[in-house]
Amino acid sequence: MSKGRQLKLGLFIQAAGHHIAGWRHADAQSGSENFELIKELAQTAERAKMDMVFLADGLTTSADAPASVVARFEPITLLAALSTVTSRIGLAVTASTTYNEPFNIARLLASVDQLSHGRAAWNVVTTSTLAAAKNYSAREHLDHSLRYERAAEFVEVVKGLWDSWEQQPYVVNKATGEYIAKEKLHELNHEGRFFSVKGPLNVTQSPQGHPVIIQAGSSDSGQDLAAQIGEVVFTAQQSLEDAQQFYAELKGRLPQYGRLPEHLHILPGLLPVIGATEREAKEKYEYLQSFIDDSFAYDSLTERFQYDMRTFSLDEPVPDIPESSGRKSRPQLLLKLARKEGLTLRQLYREVAGARGHRIAVGTPLQIADHIQQWFDGYAADGFNIMPPYVTGGLDDFVDGVIPELQSRGLFRTEYEGSTLRENLGLPIPVNRHTLVL
Amino acid sequence: MSKGRQLKLGLFIQAAGHHIAGWRHADAQSGSENFELIKELAQTAERAKMDMVFLADGLTTSADAPASVVARFEPITLLAALSTVTSRIGLAVTASTTYNEPFNIARLLASVDQLSHGRAAWNVVTTSTLAAAKNYSAREHLDHSLRYERAAEFVEVVKGLWDSWEQQPYVVNKATGEYIAKEKLHELNHEGRFFSVKGPLNVTQSPQGHPVIIQAGSSDSGQDLAAQIGEVVFTAQQSLEDAQQFYAELKGRLPQYGRLPEHLHILPGLLPVIGATEREAKEKYEYLQSFIDDSFAYDSLTERFQYDMRTFSLDEPVPDIPESSGRKSRPQLLLKLARKEGLTLRQLYREVAGARGHRIAVGTPLQIADHIQQWFDGYAADGFNIMPPYVTGGLDDFVDGVIPELQSRGLFRTEYEGSTLRENLGLPIPVNRHTLVL
Repeated sequence: MSKGRQLKLGLFIQAAGHHIAGWRHADAQSGSENFELIKELAQTAERAKMDMVFLADGLTTSADAPASVVARFEPITLLAALSTVTSRIGLAVTASTTYNEPFNIARLLASVDQLSHGRAAWNVVTTSTLAAAKNYSAREHLDHSLRYERAAEFVEVVKGLWDSWEQQPYVVNKATGEYIAKEKLHELNHEGRFFSVKGPLNVTQSPQGHPVIIQAGSSDSGQDLAAQIGEVVFTAQQSLEDAQQFYAELKGRLPQYGRLPEHLHILPGLLPVIGATEREAKEKYEYLQSFIDDSFAYDSLTERFQYDMRTFSLDEPVPDIPESSGRKSRPQLLLKLARKEGLTLRQLYREVAGARGHRIAVGTPLQIADHIQQWFDGYAADGFNIMPPYVTGGLDDFVDGVIPELQSRGLFRTEYEGSTLRENLGLPIPVNRHTLVL
Repeated sequence: MSKGRQLKLGLFIQAAGHHIAGWRHADAQSGSENFELIKELAQTAERAKMDMVFLADGLTTSADAPASVVARFEPITLLAALSTVTSRIGLAVTASTTYNEPFNIARLLASVDQLSHGRAAWNVVTTSTLAAAKNYSAREHLDHSLRYERAAEFVEVVKGLWDSWEQQPYVVNKATGEYIAKEKLHELNHEGRFFSVKGPLNVTQSPQGHPVIIQAGSSDSGQDLAAQIGEVVFTAQQSLEDAQQFYAELKGRLPQYGRLPEHLHILPGLLPVIGATEREAKEKYEYLQSFIDDSFAYDSLTERFQYDMRTFSLDEPVPDIPESSGRKSRPQLLLKLARKEGLTLRQLYREVAGARGHRIAVGTPLQIADHIQQWFDGYAADGFNIMPPYVTGGLDDFVDGVIPELQSRGLFRTEYEGSTLRENLGLPIPVNRHTLVL
């Protein structure tokens, strides 16, 4: 094993593929409610020694939603199921701080962390759409900055609940009747602006202490939250320069919170389209793009920018679009990309439809490995969250072609370093706030 | 297979045993956070062709909580994990309508129902303790009747969301690009007193349509809710006569909701203490009881009755205790039992500590089978939720000794009737409200 800085690789699972029309590829399987298929993807990623599988979430659907998300397993239950059919790979799941109670989220994730013996991670998101609010008896969604304030307190409460039990609280002495070490159980007694939560939590700590915290916001509020609590940051970056700037800026925010740069891993999304030759890869990409149906362009762009796009022509250059109070960072990245490349709205839609604003890399396994190494060596990324355009072929291409190349370059592990996700990511086990450190 | 009325049997899983000191039995294993142990229990129950495993829930803990519940897996995630290591047995889980959002519960349970291919059940409870409220930013718990009103609307919303998708919505036509049949997806647009929920849900229906609904309340409000929505009722009954009265009364409430008596199964809890001889069984029971520590008697009784019991002597007959606004039916059953049997508070505590107010049957496998048959034939029960006093021995005794006897009497299946829980329980698949019935 190389001792140097090592790549971290996630598999972002979408069981109809990440390309919006990936399920139409002749070789594609699909099924966001097909456990056998998802199990196969997770086991393939584990065989390849990838760090984690990553599950997104959404609190709404509609008849026009993309195939991967129109209907799907609730991700925490899916993760619990995956915990029984994998043994080493990390299990990362997205859950909203806006439409949940911290006690419920703390329990659900601690439970998955116990089921998996310390392999869970929580991607903290603040749900931003009005459509979601309408499924939760709310008339409107919270303003952007208020959502982030609530999110910060929510995470504080969850982490406090995760410290309810110090490590190894079980005694189980049949003779004396002592089942647990009572002094290792602690109330939280949190009283804050948004929440009051007494505790303690009724789940003990896994071997990794707390689930790993993932953050995906790239706005100023999002970056600040990430700098405070994020241990993995999942981001969308289109260019090496932008990614380097984001990387430097976010890592630069860590010292003010007393954190080391290596305790936060920045993983942009990457949708690889892989062919034996560059030409074959390009043809594969064009083949996938050929299935994109422009008739959803207006709906999709309107939802993405939370602005009525019907006032613009699809075939003119991308116009100025005001910021919404919903998602901020991702739309701005897209507009920047569009202006830089002189795209029309239709072209932007087709680009976005492919990978939802994430970087698409088209090439041979060597070219993909070069791209990954360039970003890694250039401190634009600590690794990537891999988004196969279709399954299972899109994952197999990456695992069989790119990962061995990364391994032979000494950039990626050939065996897991440990049994918990924290060990494999090189992250410290959080010191329980109640444990005396002498 | 007998064609007559058949017993239904659940396994109520508590992984440190149901007897409060069951974990101290010399042969006992324990571990409410030990998936391998719980998996073994579920697989044993499946080998025995039991209808379902049943998981309780609690939203609080304390250092003095019983071993089985002081810390444990969150039950929905545990059920999701169990779905992958079992294939036929039903998977029933408790979830509160008081500290959850209907959209979240609808998703979680629909997802487990999909993961298990139609084997999920939801035990609908209205959490009643002030301690729980304090984990959810609430200053006090809802009044009893308000909780039941909220519960009824909550279940209405959840069932509405479960009808978001008609059966078999997937088309997956790569040539045309049609992934789902859009006309099979429906919004709910619920606007009620407690909730407004637009829908649709982003999980489709399992082969059994909806998870089976279990209800456990035995108060008047609880029975009324059970008559409206319950398909299984889990109850505590101490005597044949009381159980017969409860059975007749509850089944008698069904016609006013247009329901057939056979579409609701009444399953009292039963804690069997089994020996090769009656004497051996009695000794085993006394052995278990010998571990009960009276020092928790006041705390336990105070929590159970939500009334300060320190004002009474443990060695005087059970006094009059006013009703609380928390749980109603279970405390009243206990008081009735205590008066009937002339128990002191200490004796009541010890009785309750054993099985939390559920019926304890001590005897040989034949005697336990006789007891079950007497209640079944006497229309006091449609079956039982079996509560092994310790694990795994307490379950093995039942599965190896009692079940074969029930099978040889033609009372219990020797093979599962179908692949879904509804099929095995003989319950109808709910007709989707959006499906045209011609």
